[in-house]
Amino acid sequence: MPPTIGVFDSGFGGLTVLRELLEVLPGADYLYFGDTARLPYGSKSAHTVAKYAISSAHFLQERGAEILVIACNTATALALDEIKSAVTLPVIGVVEPGAQRAAEISKTRKAAVIATEATVASHAYEKALGARGIQSTEKACPLLVPLVEEGWIDHPVTEQVAHIYIDEVFRNGAKGADVLLLGCTHYPLLRAMLRRVVPAQVQIVDSAESTAKAVAERLQVPAAGGVGKVRCFATDSVEKFRRLGGRFLGRPIEDIELIDIET
Amino acid sequence: MPPTIGVFDSGFGGLTVLRELLEVLPGADYLYFGDTARLPYGSKSAHTVAKYAISSAHFLQERGAEILVIACNTATALALDEIKSAVTLPVIGVVEPGAQRAAEISKTRKAAVIATEATVASHAYEKALGARGIQSTEKACPLLVPLVEEGWIDHPVTEQVAHIYIDEVFRNGAKGADVLLLGCTHYPLLRAMLRRVVPAQVQIVDSAESTAKAVAERLQVPAAGGVGKVRCFATDSVEKFRRLGGRFLGRPIEDIELIDIET
Repeated sequence: MPPTIGVFDSGFGGLTVLRELLEVLPGADYLYFGDTARLPYGSKSAHTVAKYAISSAHFLQERGAEILVIACNTATALALDEIKSAVTLPVIGVVEPGAQRAAEISKTRKAAVIATEATVASHAYEKALGARGIQSTEKACPLLVPLVEEGWIDHPVTEQVAHIYIDEVFRNGAKGADVLLLGCTHYPLLRAMLRRVVPAQVQIVDSAESTAKAVAERLQVPAAGGVGKVRCFATDSVEKFRRLGGRFLGRPIEDIELIDIET
Repeated sequence: MPPTIGVFDSGFGGLTVLRELLEVLPGADYLYFGDTARLPYGSKSAHTVAKYAISSAHFLQERGAEILVIACNTATALALDEIKSAVTLPVIGVVEPGAQRAAEISKTRKAAVIATEATVASHAYEKALGARGIQSTEKACPLLVPLVEEGWIDHPVTEQVAHIYIDEVFRNGAKGADVLLLGCTHYPLLRAMLRRVVPAQVQIVDSAESTAKAVAERLQVPAAGGVGKVRCFATDSVEKFRRLGGRFLGRPIEDIELIDIET
């Protein structure tokens, strides 16, 4: 039997994690929960985010998830321990795998992290990197998520905004950093553009990719074999989920169900 | 006794309506409810917005509001009738007063409307303007809210984004329009910048201003007399409400209480 992997995010961003999971574990079955009625989590408080994330984790466990991937940097940063306590299945967040990968490749032992406001305010990446001997500078980039959602992936305005944020982080504190950690699951869509903006000596680490690899290691199932099912659940407009989500997943999304989590 | 006016919004934007209310009715008492835990409404479905708005309307009625101002274009556009049915006090939304003002000043009988995705999808302004003999072209501008919330009020990137949106609306359909209606309560903060971007013959109508005047006419109380109290309630971080809200209200916010609306 292929494993059933539950993937949770506040919206569409976690689909970049699912996309990477489908690369490394194509034979698994996936249940993806996007809490689109209550997004974005990035500007909300820890208490609110924890409450939302736990109800969604319960939902996925009830639907048969055997392992839970918190494919949301904000929920991981603010509420991972609370989620782990509230469910009985293994839980993997996106922060530790991203920090681990950054620590493996950094030579200068300095990293820059870009993320949402709430993730930065939690200093989850600073702590995870610090525990691995990496000094970090974090920068909130609240405009990048709406720019991605507007579809301005390769747009001059997005590049200009990225320039402003990236210049600021490398000017303030991140001098000498040789790794930029993408601490938001929307940012992988900007990776090609960010490559042009980020200093040449800086390597880009994507938490989505690192997390998928961590899940594959944890499950220790063969990467090959069959094509698994992907079922999606959204708390708001299924039509919008289909339209926007396909961009994040990199392929059309077929099976989406509207869920009212409060009832 | 001064009247107690309840003002409801998904977040901070409605404070631009409160700001205008304080201009025309400085002696009234105000209860402002910002549903910041569940913002933004602009990307959510009608069903979800109606559910949230009604619970907030009940809260304000219980706290003593004698009239309710829905200072949120999305909630007005999607849920005004449902809110009116769910409460027993008079309810005023932002769409009708804005449309009324546009109809009063337009000579070409053509208007352009900029708003959030959900407001545009509802075509509430198109209907309200159409009922007054004004032909309109609506344009969703989803990046303007995050730009305002980032504090980039008079920033070259914001001006460039506004140029893209405004050029598009006046190129597609809004040729000959002599009014631009600001159909989102965040946009008054961009009014000076928009004045530079919008064609010279086009007048800008601000729904926040028009709504405050409509409330004053409805209450028929003298504008002068005393300084009323302003109490704010937020469903998420009070600290953020204070910091961001002051920018919208145009003065510091003192009295803010955290509310858990689901309990």
